Amino acid sequence: MSLIEVSSELAYQVNAPTDFLFNIAAAQTGHQSVRNESFSVTPEIPYEVCQIGGEHNRVLRLRVDQGPFTLAYHAVVNLTPELDNSPAIEEASYAELPSEILPYLNPSRYCESDRLARFAQQEFGNLDPGFSRVTAVCNWIHQFLDYVAGTTDARTSACDVLIQRTGVCRDYAHLAISLCRALCIPARYVSGYAVGLEPPDFHGFFEAYLGDHWYLFDATRMAPTHGMVRIGTGRDASDASFATIIGAAVLQHMTVTAQELTDDLPDKPSEDEPAVSTG
Amino acid sequence: MSLIEVSSELAYQVNAPTDFLFNIAAAQTGHQSVRNESFSVTPEIPYEVCQIGGEHNRVLRLRVDQGPFTLAYHAVVNLTPELDNSPAIEEASYAELPSEILPYLNPSRYCESDRLARFAQQEFGNLDPGFSRVTAVCNWIHQFLDYVAGTTDARTSACDVLIQRTGVCRDYAHLAISLCRALCIPARYVSGYAVGLEPPDFHGFFEAYLGDHWYLFDATRMAPTHGMVRIGTGRDASDASFATIIGAAVLQHMTVTAQELTDDLPDKPSEDEPAVSTG
Amino acid sequence: MSLIEVSSELAYQVNAPTDFLFNIAAAQTGHQSVRNESFSVTPEIPYEVCQIGGEHNRVLRLRVDQGPFTLAYHAVVNLTPELDNSPAIEEASYAELPSEILPYLNPSRYCESDRLARFAQQEFGNLDPGFSRVTAVCNWIHQFLDYVAGTTDARTSACDVLIQRTGVCRDYAHLAISLCRALCIPARYVSGYAVGLEPPDFHGFFEAYLGDHWYLFDATRMAPTHGMVRIGTGRDASDASFATIIGAAVLQHMTVTAQELTDDLPDKPSEDEPAVSTG
Amino acid sequence: MSLIEVSSELAYQVNAPTDFLFNIAAAQTGHQSVRNESFSVTPEIPYEVCQIGGEHNRVLRLRVDQGPFTLAYHAVVNLTPELDNSPAIEEASYAELPSEILPYLNPSRYCESDRLARFAQQEFGNLDPGFSRVTAVCNWIHQFLDYVAGTTDARTSACDVLIQRTGVCRDYAHLAISLCRALCIPARYVSGYAVGLEPPDFHGFFEAYLGDHWYLFDATRMAPTHGMVRIGTGRDASDASFATIIGAAVLQHMTVTAQELTDDLPDKPSEDEPAVSTG
Repeated sequence: MSLIEVSSELAYQVNAPTDFLFNIAAAQTGHQSVRNESFSVTPEIPYEVCQIGGEHNRVLRLRVDQGPFTLAYHAVVNLTPELDNSPAIEEASYAELPSEILPYLNPSRYCESDRLARFAQQEFGNLDPGFSRVTAVCNWIHQFLDYVAGTTDARTSACDVLIQRTGVCRDYAHLAISLCRALCIPARYVSGYAVGLEPPDFHGFFEAYLGDHWYLFDATRMAPTHGMVRIGTGRDASDASFATIIGAAVLQHMTVTAQELTDDLPDKPSEDEPAVSTG
Repeated sequence: MSLIEVSSELAYQVNAPTDFLFNIAAAQTGHQSVRNESFSVTPEIPYEVCQIGGEHNRVLRLRVDQGPFTLAYHAVVNLTPELDNSPAIEEASYAELPSEILPYLNPSRYCESDRLARFAQQEFGNLDPGFSRVTAVCNWIHQFLDYVAGTTDARTSACDVLIQRTGVCRDYAHLAISLCRALCIPARYVSGYAVGLEPPDFHGFFEAYLGDHWYLFDATRMAPTHGMVRIGTGRDASDASFATIIGAAVLQHMTVTAQELTDDLPDKPSEDEPAVSTG
Repeated sequence: MSLIEVSSELAYQVNAPTDFLFNIAAAQTGHQSVRNESFSVTPEIPYEVCQIGGEHNRVLRLRVDQGPFTLAYHAVVNLTPELDNSPAIEEASYAELPSEILPYLNPSRYCESDRLARFAQQEFGNLDPGFSRVTAVCNWIHQFLDYVAGTTDARTSACDVLIQRTGVCRDYAHLAISLCRALCIPARYVSGYAVGLEPPDFHGFFEAYLGDHWYLFDATRMAPTHGMVRIGTGRDASDASFATIIGAAVLQHMTVTAQELTDDLPDKPSEDEPAVSTG
Repeated sequence: MSLIEVSSELAYQVNAPTDFLFNIAAAQTGHQSVRNESFSVTPEIPYEVCQIGGEHNRVLRLRVDQGPFTLAYHAVVNLTPELDNSPAIEEASYAELPSEILPYLNPSRYCESDRLARFAQQEFGNLDPGFSRVTAVCNWIHQFLDYVAGTTDARTSACDVLIQRTGVCRDYAHLAISLCRALCIPARYVSGYAVGLEPPDFHGFFEAYLGDHWYLFDATRMAPTHGMVRIGTGRDASDASFATIIGAAVLQHMTVTAQELTDDLPDKPSEDEPAVSTG
């Protein structure tokens, strides 16, 4: 168990009446409970917070008139991940996968797993199935991709990344998800707050479905998985945008923080992190 | 109300033990009920039929050993679509959209709506919002695309189709879905049986969310929407494959039929079809 | 005939020994002669100026050590374009095209004309062949594309532009070239200096082969074609980069100028510009 | 020196008056001379044979009316390749490359070398420059690509191939060319007849510019390079199509043969083929 304090603040110049959908609030799951949460909206405008569907994404919706606008979020989150012995975690066979998990084998906007079947088999097909194979996917990505801000944009997909060999956290996650799906391992995107991430920012990582759990992975290795506070879950980053803007608004500044209150998390991911399940 | 009899038969040569997931059974929705349904599997093998998630897709799962294998499906389906006066159907504003509908605004594997925002605004941005605007999208696609089998494959996306100007039913649907989403109209893919389709085959079409309903559209205009029996619903065709095959099997032949028993459906889609809602 | 004074200055910080290939000097053609040309290299380093192949591109090559580096170019260019009566200019039939022109019908890196055959036929196939058809291509592009800096990059191709409907001068040229080739009209890319371009910069435009001449066109309509001083000619912008850098160097600043000395050019392109041939 | 007899026959059903451009005749170069050449056109129609530009491509042009049409080509070709000691062949530095060779470093329609710079550096950047590095590129392609007819088409580019890991000879060549260019090694496409190719067909391979020569390579290893008779040379396959058809014609059948008359060629490529230069 750990207590993690997270916050974010987004300030916009709104140039015309604009609808916003924010996905920056910590999710409420069986392994993640939210305490002391507060939303602060300036100027004061009525807003709605709702939880969507099976993935527990919580979104804040509101309509903002012209002028400056700021949303601040603060929460203390209680994380009780399930920690498993990673060598013992096997892949479920296709026949064993619950039907509601199956859509996470399908390709998505940024994860064209259908095009990567042969590549995935070449690189990872001969490895022992299980947690270690997903780790091998992460290792491969960590080795061959360079983390370079500005080399990708909102159109960049996993295949683009595989060609150009650079990206940022969402690109790392998209490629990992694509390779897992191509190996018949269900995988999905998770956005979140991450303790220890430098520089502090929203983070993007992923979950693979192994045995009968969703396990967290981060191919960037920029922060430990057991310090990650889930915000949004979806097929890929298109399902977990921090801000969806229908109208005309320009982001002026953004700050994000995440810190461990109980002080028992390591600062950096280690080679032998436990298998962390919070889904 | 109409009674529609549908059937399909898929015969495979299975070359190694193979998992199949079939999505060929009629869905059970508030507007579509299934009577006299039968699955016939040769050789006799245990199988499971389950309904997945909010979209009511019903899938048949089984594992098949080496040898010939045939699945036959037959059903009589009772369709009670809601027919609305199309000129009265307006688009919901973004603020009015229920949160669970919002994911159908996101881009997906075959529907890169994020790339088409400007194109959609140029062509359709000045039209009156509502049912007629989605009809205009369908008209545009019908006018500028040529239906040519063999010009697209399982990798072809809406942007590819927009460039090359040819495709088959799933491509028409993908482009229409992409343009709707780019116009901020939620849209999703539907696979089904279609009375009057020539040659008989599985069909792919789409739904747009207008007012507070999902309405059926078919940009191919190859069959009337009120003779369409829903099988699968999803973000795009990747969520509604008729057969997913994990293993080694080759399709040997396939037959599909759909006929109206109550005989009150027109053979061909007309210019002034009613607005049909079955979702 | 007109006299045009052009200049450019490019300043780099060179971080390691680097090879440069500059294509910023005015070409020498039957209709364009260069007077008073000077290259100024700081620090003083030996360099080579050579003319490449049939397209008359003149490149400056040199190897630069670590440190600041500046190249300045200045020239007075005598332009004697052939001005033709545009309605009288017809397309050559395929059989009439000289063999050495045929490669300009082939697709290239940024001009995937092979994918645009049907689109080009739909939009322009019924128009009268000739100069006016190429003008129609330019008009279409001018109407449907928005000139927005920063929306494209060095990977952006004509098909990307056609989808996203934005670009800068090279993108406009690439799309125009692609559509011409798809219509069986040879077309090629031209980089140059352009009198009247605001803000002053290097420019990218194109030539179409009509009758038995190459004619200049600019779908951006940002400067008159008869004030354009040719630098490089090629299949697309990949053949006419202003600077090719093999090593490690960062551009610090760049200035470009082009002005009419004889003062008989209009400031802005007009609807009825003459047909200009300088190739 | 070797004497090679080649032939090809292409039979079409022409449905409307059609222009053909055939590039099936053996090239005439310093290392390849053509003897006893014959073209046979049925029905008898006037045609033109011309050699284009610096690459020595020889094309046959003619216009055919409706009806059946056959072109048969037969030649005996005298090959006098320059055979070099491959370990001694070094890469030219960028500064050493002749200016007329530089365009073969540029990306082209099917060879997006600009996107592959980082990948090429990762895989091949640390290898010793020279003939052996190009061999390493070929080995990599041979190892990771599967030769599967029907998995690619006329739109498939090197990046597609790198993702999907399948292709045919032209795809192998395109990927090799792209990787060479990304390593700053000029490379170009060659089409030809190939002794020992099974099944007999036109072939596609490539040349890399090393030292001061163009050397032949074939990443498919389906035929020995010293039994290859050059037809067309260009940036990629778009410059060396066997048949360009402007009109309406359907290929009915095609036969291609190539056999060694002097009988001193091995049947299959060996690991230690000599370095062959015929460019």
